Amino acid sequence: MTAFSPLLAELFDIAAPSTAMDAALQHAIDIKTKPPGSLGALERVAHRIGRIQQSATPELTRPAMLVFAGDHGVVAAGVSPYPQAVTAQMVLNFLRGGAAINVFCRAGGIEMEVINAGVAADFPAHASLVDIPVARGTQNFVDVPAMTREQLETALAAGAARVVAHASRGTRMVGFGEMGIGNTSAAACLMQRLTGRPLADCVGRGTGVDDAGLARKTAVLERALAAHPATGAPPDTPDPLETLATFGGFEIAMMTGAYLAAAKLGLVIVVDGFISTSALLVAARVAPAVLDYCVYAHASDETGHRAMLEALGAEPLLHLGLRLGEGTGAALAMPLIQAAAAFLREMATFEGAGVSDRE
Amino acid sequence: MTAFSPLLAELFDIAAPSTAMDAALQHAIDIKTKPPGSLGALERVAHRIGRIQQSATPELTRPAMLVFAGDHGVVAAGVSPYPQAVTAQMVLNFLRGGAAINVFCRAGGIEMEVINAGVAADFPAHASLVDIPVARGTQNFVDVPAMTREQLETALAAGAARVVAHASRGTRMVGFGEMGIGNTSAAACLMQRLTGRPLADCVGRGTGVDDAGLARKTAVLERALAAHPATGAPPDTPDPLETLATFGGFEIAMMTGAYLAAAKLGLVIVVDGFISTSALLVAARVAPAVLDYCVYAHASDETGHRAMLEALGAEPLLHLGLRLGEGTGAALAMPLIQAAAAFLREMATFEGAGVSDRE
Repeated sequence: MTAFSPLLAELFDIAAPSTAMDAALQHAIDIKTKPPGSLGALERVAHRIGRIQQSATPELTRPAMLVFAGDHGVVAAGVSPYPQAVTAQMVLNFLRGGAAINVFCRAGGIEMEVINAGVAADFPAHASLVDIPVARGTQNFVDVPAMTREQLETALAAGAARVVAHASRGTRMVGFGEMGIGNTSAAACLMQRLTGRPLADCVGRGTGVDDAGLARKTAVLERALAAHPATGAPPDTPDPLETLATFGGFEIAMMTGAYLAAAKLGLVIVVDGFISTSALLVAARVAPAVLDYCVYAHASDETGHRAMLEALGAEPLLHLGLRLGEGTGAALAMPLIQAAAAFLREMATFEGAGVSDRE
Repeated sequence: MTAFSPLLAELFDIAAPSTAMDAALQHAIDIKTKPPGSLGALERVAHRIGRIQQSATPELTRPAMLVFAGDHGVVAAGVSPYPQAVTAQMVLNFLRGGAAINVFCRAGGIEMEVINAGVAADFPAHASLVDIPVARGTQNFVDVPAMTREQLETALAAGAARVVAHASRGTRMVGFGEMGIGNTSAAACLMQRLTGRPLADCVGRGTGVDDAGLARKTAVLERALAAHPATGAPPDTPDPLETLATFGGFEIAMMTGAYLAAAKLGLVIVVDGFISTSALLVAARVAPAVLDYCVYAHASDETGHRAMLEALGAEPLLHLGLRLGEGTGAALAMPLIQAAAAFLREMATFEGAGVSDRE
């Protein structure tokens, strides 16, 4: 693709956190009053958070969950058993506080915001709704690219701006959720194109697709991928942003911008399920250092998510068999991530507590 | 063993929760605004909590963590690389708020109480300490039973009384943690005797045992098991409470009484790691219905814990590679269990939210 605006170009230039404190952080973890390594995965997470914040007393203040919603033209091809109207209905459910993500954010003390990234419906004004649709749904990518270059840029910048807004209010940990009937189809195409895995490894049942539906969904996506052959330089490296414009959704594009901004600002990013991880896959192809700011919440039951996590070298915290989306896995993992930061910040040391170490 | 006091006999008589609401609870879960089954393990947990409370709007008020501490005579045989004094040092660390379990209870909004069940040390009075030691540590079970019949009864009743105290203050979810240098040895013997598994499957590295230490620990426990052959009726069924008196610790015996009381009172019980689960194994042999009140927090990295969970038919929520004890796994799982209760209690239904179900 051609050059991006200076604002976006800056967003794409992300530095990895310094590793200068790594040994000091490991030492800080090891002298806590516990056998070495006995907090398992939480020790890895604590080390990562300490490195991101360059601090042995990290704080994950004002955790926030940004839920991006958008509609997908590809639903016209019959890829989902739910009607497209469910996207808008679920946005209203979010605004009334009745969805799973609302419940988990309340339970976890997480600020939640709903962003209309491009739903095919209008919404009444609401204090919890950021109503900034790029369009009323994407185009059907079986025929044409899902969005234009201009729409892509608008979505990336808008997603980044939401993260900036939260960071300015004190947020140091952020998760991204999504709602969009048809968006497992978009994510499957992004995954196939960017990882090169066979389509069958990338296509799953989404929200309740049966065997016949899965076959239909796969056939549709095969056609779509063939209709938009990969371009890029070198020729076998697909351009991640062109791929995003071709197959993505406005919610996925906003999430991509949000990932980049969160890494740029040094936030701890909690990665949710299949759709959220597909946006991360794009972001990481644009700026690989974004991965150093991520903690992986869970391995979902959606086909492809585990393979996607493997492609990213990710070790997810939770294995609960979730396959709901909305950011639910990230919201459920946030208390564990808070606990990891808290043990590094607050636990006593052997010496400080007068506890004998091994003989 | 001979008859127990009427109070304990009553404690041993536990009814399973009614299954009359099971279908209604499943229906309540299925009509929430999410694809059926999409909350994975949390749906199983929500159903279990709903059944325990006989309610589709369950509340887990005032979650509490009871941490029982006790010393073990068997440490004289060289089963742990840490000196026995660490038990008392860690109790003081708990009282100052510096241990992992303190941090996780604070992070999770969990009431924490420390019970001196039988540490080989004296403690100054402290608001968070329930100072009710049965004795200053158990006897070395390589030679003689760890505790007398009277000590066992005292410990069971004391553990039960702590749960009654919390329930009377409104607690509806409880977890049991422990501290006791040498208590993985006690738990390994309980497991071997009660499950019949080979000792090698039951003995682990505890807190930092190396290869040579593991061989020594195994040899010691082999001798101990041979010194106290199983009795029971029929002859091949070891008496669980006699086994507990022979190999247990005061903290394990108090936990056993606590499990029984919690089930009796209809609390949701969050089961922690290897030591806590060994106490549950005893409790379940006394009153199998206690298992219907349990949610399993995690599979620890301590050898034997997974096999013990299998023996109980348990499906743990977390797989974080923890091996610290103290109740840390249970404390980390409590926010997830709260989230499970909250989705059942608070989520909107398809009909109530005006969301279309599948076509």
